[in-house]
Amino acid sequence: MQDIKVRPIIEQVTPEINCGRYPIKRVVGDKVNLRVIIISDGHDELSARVLFKKKSETNWSEKPLKLLWNDIWLGDFSVDSLEDYYYTIEAWVDSFKTWKHNFTKKFEDNQDVRVELQIGISLVQSATKRADAATSNSLQKILKALETDTNKPVSKDVAELAIGDELASLMEVCPDRHLSTRYHKELKVEVDRERAAFSSWYEVFPRSCSSAEGKHGTFQDLEGFLPYISSMGFDVVYLPPIHPIGHTFRKGKNNTLNPEKSDPGVPWAIGSIDGGHKSVHQELGTLEDFVKVVNKAKEMGMEIALDIAFQCSPDHPYVLEHPEWFRKRPDGTIQYAENPPKKYQDIYPFDFESEKAKELWEELKSVFFFWIERGVKIFRVDNPHTKSLYFWKWVISEIRAVHPDVLFLAEAFTRPNIMYHLAKIGYTQSYTYFTWRNTKEELTEYLTELTSTEVAEFYRPNFWPNTPDILHAFLQNGGRAACMSRVILAATMSSNFGIYGPVYELCVNVPREPNSEEYLNSEKYEVRHWDLNNSVSIRPLITKINEIRKNNKALQRNFNVQFYETNNDHLIAYSKHTDDFGNIILVIVNLDPYFTQSGFVKFDCSQVGLDVNKPFYLKDLLTEKEYKWHGNWNFIELNPQNFPAHIFCINQVSASSEE
Amino acid sequence: MQDIKVRPIIEQVTPEINCGRYPIKRVVGDKVNLRVIIISDGHDELSARVLFKKKSETNWSEKPLKLLWNDIWLGDFSVDSLEDYYYTIEAWVDSFKTWKHNFTKKFEDNQDVRVELQIGISLVQSATKRADAATSNSLQKILKALETDTNKPVSKDVAELAIGDELASLMEVCPDRHLSTRYHKELKVEVDRERAAFSSWYEVFPRSCSSAEGKHGTFQDLEGFLPYISSMGFDVVYLPPIHPIGHTFRKGKNNTLNPEKSDPGVPWAIGSIDGGHKSVHQELGTLEDFVKVVNKAKEMGMEIALDIAFQCSPDHPYVLEHPEWFRKRPDGTIQYAENPPKKYQDIYPFDFESEKAKELWEELKSVFFFWIERGVKIFRVDNPHTKSLYFWKWVISEIRAVHPDVLFLAEAFTRPNIMYHLAKIGYTQSYTYFTWRNTKEELTEYLTELTSTEVAEFYRPNFWPNTPDILHAFLQNGGRAACMSRVILAATMSSNFGIYGPVYELCVNVPREPNSEEYLNSEKYEVRHWDLNNSVSIRPLITKINEIRKNNKALQRNFNVQFYETNNDHLIAYSKHTDDFGNIILVIVNLDPYFTQSGFVKFDCSQVGLDVNKPFYLKDLLTEKEYKWHGNWNFIELNPQNFPAHIFCINQVSASSEE
Repeated sequence: MQDIKVRPIIEQVTPEINCGRYPIKRVVGDKVNLRVIIISDGHDELSARVLFKKKSETNWSEKPLKLLWNDIWLGDFSVDSLEDYYYTIEAWVDSFKTWKHNFTKKFEDNQDVRVELQIGISLVQSATKRADAATSNSLQKILKALETDTNKPVSKDVAELAIGDELASLMEVCPDRHLSTRYHKELKVEVDRERAAFSSWYEVFPRSCSSAEGKHGTFQDLEGFLPYISSMGFDVVYLPPIHPIGHTFRKGKNNTLNPEKSDPGVPWAIGSIDGGHKSVHQELGTLEDFVKVVNKAKEMGMEIALDIAFQCSPDHPYVLEHPEWFRKRPDGTIQYAENPPKKYQDIYPFDFESEKAKELWEELKSVFFFWIERGVKIFRVDNPHTKSLYFWKWVISEIRAVHPDVLFLAEAFTRPNIMYHLAKIGYTQSYTYFTWRNTKEELTEYLTELTSTEVAEFYRPNFWPNTPDILHAFLQNGGRAACMSRVILAATMSSNFGIYGPVYELCVNVPREPNSEEYLNSEKYEVRHWDLNNSVSIRPLITKINEIRKNNKALQRNFNVQFYETNNDHLIAYSKHTDDFGNIILVIVNLDPYFTQSGFVKFDCSQVGLDVNKPFYLKDLLTEKEYKWHGNWNFIELNPQNFPAHIFCINQVSASSEE
Repeated sequence: MQDIKVRPIIEQVTPEINCGRYPIKRVVGDKVNLRVIIISDGHDELSARVLFKKKSETNWSEKPLKLLWNDIWLGDFSVDSLEDYYYTIEAWVDSFKTWKHNFTKKFEDNQDVRVELQIGISLVQSATKRADAATSNSLQKILKALETDTNKPVSKDVAELAIGDELASLMEVCPDRHLSTRYHKELKVEVDRERAAFSSWYEVFPRSCSSAEGKHGTFQDLEGFLPYISSMGFDVVYLPPIHPIGHTFRKGKNNTLNPEKSDPGVPWAIGSIDGGHKSVHQELGTLEDFVKVVNKAKEMGMEIALDIAFQCSPDHPYVLEHPEWFRKRPDGTIQYAENPPKKYQDIYPFDFESEKAKELWEELKSVFFFWIERGVKIFRVDNPHTKSLYFWKWVISEIRAVHPDVLFLAEAFTRPNIMYHLAKIGYTQSYTYFTWRNTKEELTEYLTELTSTEVAEFYRPNFWPNTPDILHAFLQNGGRAACMSRVILAATMSSNFGIYGPVYELCVNVPREPNSEEYLNSEKYEVRHWDLNNSVSIRPLITKINEIRKNNKALQRNFNVQFYETNNDHLIAYSKHTDDFGNIILVIVNLDPYFTQSGFVKFDCSQVGLDVNKPFYLKDLLTEKEYKWHGNWNFIELNPQNFPAHIFCINQVSASSEE
């Protein structure tokens, strides 16, 4: 039990996710900003510090917190290595600060402070015993000057020495903390590498990478395709499953149930006589070919991300070897996936309530390790919300314990609490509802939730304008202009974004049927061949955007997002800036893919640290044109066919020679 | 460790104060409404229950939670005895509910459900083993009907029996919970008696109770005064300290430092040669006289509340007997209270950092027990925020463990976090900022914070329009009309309210000096005598208000407060209603004490459960007049000199014969 003489109380520490049950997330070099309520009885002065350490350290480092007002204390610390951190708070009634405050008031009021000085002296005397040798020496010197004749009134010199900065600084390093309160929890920061917070993804089907039309692409073809991806500035190349594909209940073109012999099947129907989750599809090549792709990508500054889809085709070797990992029906068959009345007979889900669940967990973990050993450090996990959430918590922590540089992207399109939970239990990044947020109101509300609430502490959104499963009506109807505006939104709103190509840059937008979000002749069911040189391609725009992202730190995090009023609902305006306002980006997008839209934007430049009384300069990073604004309301006109957006870099000093 | 096959996750349980560190508060008979997030993987159906028990019980009672949407589950339970309660949540994947859902979809889709029926049958078979004898018998009967020829398609009759309500109800009482998740905390409800939530306080100085002017009042005089208090409908009579008053540095009239010999001193300067916190001031009478007052009040349905002011006059016996409980200065003197440069030399605070803190805690606790043994069950604690917060947590819990019917009112006028903290650690009721909230905007914002946020779960406001320390400028300037409107606001906004009388009902409002909140010739420093029959008295109004409060349950709690728009900022409109809408009160107050104000009130009667398409009837409980309204906007005019408010009881049926 704590000493009953202890008095401060520490409460409402933020960030703290679900009472500390889950960690917050940062990447190496990031800062953690703290806000804490610290109270005590009476009018004594308090001092408080944040205590923080890496997991591998035994001793805490410390930084002082500062009182804002109304018992709110602020502070921060930085995480500087790829290791989990812990933090907690300590606070104490600071008898010297209290004494100094009271002594000052009394001295200024011309009261007799002889006894008060004696109290101060005894506080300094105790401090000498706690201080290191140097501090103790300095304190002793001051003590000598303070210890004057107690019969005489305290002189101005002595008083000023007593309440001066020199003594205060010395006392600050050896405070009396024997009655301090320690917050009763140690909170965790999961620290990832930079790419966890800032990444540009490109999803591609290797089997469509052949340069010859009608031929099944190979890993070697993919290798040849990498320079194209790299030229656009992407740094993560994500491949749908590369494993052997099942034959039983194989789906044909456009998800039909009567495939032709030549139909290659769906890559997510994993497993055949050739192997399962640790094998590669023979038509793609060998495991060695795959490792070559991984290394080639690395040379180009990119990483290969694999798809982890924990489910089996009926032909998966697991089905024979471990029937106990699947749910058996009374007729002896294995339960296939279903969403009654719909049946997915080509897919067997694992049974996480199996009596052999522990073995299943271990095997699935070994799948991750298998690919990690082959150089893969990023995994996009398919439908994690349909597998035991406890399993994910366990497997991710097992992997991170050995490989803290491994990243996990959760492909869970489900209810918000489940999506957020997956992030809390370890997923590095998450798919979002971005694809379905198209109006100014929807985008503003959603981005505010993601960046300005507690969610920002643990959930790293990855914005995708399309995926092989989602061709949104906005793209179907809006065509090339819509493809341009949506990729600009994704890449500037979220520091992590991705596209599924080449269909995206080629503005492919024909759905399988009206009101469907499926692509016509989707690569999910067949091998496709793409004319990358088609003039419709928005490859130049995408290249430019990735370049802008690399050059502007403000776009590499999701902190400090602010929205601005516009008098035209087709125009959305938002800014991002670095903590020090060294980089300020203002994005204005025309959300209407059909018509030129114009209107006024109310940009209050004081919100990004600028002086409202001076003009400021906006350089459009897309067009390299510079503008000069003064005051709040400024005119904007955007033609969606041309450049549907401005991406302004803002400065109070002109970058050009214009002024 | 939990079985790895367990799947649901329980989060964000509300109410839960500071992660469960502090209890919520209720009174006997109250309901606790719960909101919980429960998630799991996949699409299986969940079931969940709230588990609750009294502290003295070992077994949990249970009530089902209901899914609202988006993983939000709602439920409730009631607390029905004067004892602390605990609650937690349990959830599980409900295999029968899941099966029933899937079976229904497939049957409706005309699929072959023979195998599915077998799965259902085996679920029912297992249930028979968990069920009590009666349920098991009923299940067996249904099983017989279900077990038909598996070669034939499932008949409509069998299917309907399988998914029917009878089987569902039976399965509901014996669910398979072996893989259930239990929330990892047991949360506490502090249950008080009714008066904790609903009380009307009257503060009176016993020494001013003599019927003869110029005479020091006695307990016997107070006994004679009780019928007057009771006639106005109050149920708590709160007395400033009744202990011997110190002589050293005694204050004179109007807080002067040069008292006359006849000056009686300040009751809060506790302790003299005659005794301390366990003694009574001799001029008031004897301890026996005091006990007589306590009993007399009880006979009249009232309770005496004592003031607990843990501080000492320099003459308090503790100072000699326990000098170690006070802070000693280097010159050997004891540290008096101060707020530099101000000095309060008539008061010695206790030193809660004393090496003998434990003995001090015990002695202070014994003060409470001393008065409890003499029949006092309500304590108004003076400045609790200047004594160790840990001490209060301990002493209140020690007292409540033996006397769960004891109530504590915290007189802490300080920063919000500290006031809320005192409530969290045990204070039953709390003084508030009400006195300083006078405009419509201020009142609306403050009451919303107190009643519509988490604060409502632990902080019970007690609204006082005045105290011996606070005569607000609004009363000084607004006179009798202000006294009327402020007491109406206090008594209808907060289920706990109080006035310091007789000055309040006599509309005494002259401050000691301009810009002071102190009363001129305050009873704190002298004996006063009051003409209770002065025609200025608002005693009839106060009597009426207390009668209205007793007759209207909506005013006995602070739940369900709603504010309504008015087109005149002098008019404030708000409603309270019981959970079942059986009692609906709409209060409209003219906040301007000088002029008649009129305007329109937008009262949306659907917010209090009424049919917007029908007219409704408003009976003004102050005037007994009835009005009929239809639609949202209705006209109001209030003359502050007459009745500055309407207190409407609303009904869709006319109470009069008018219709």
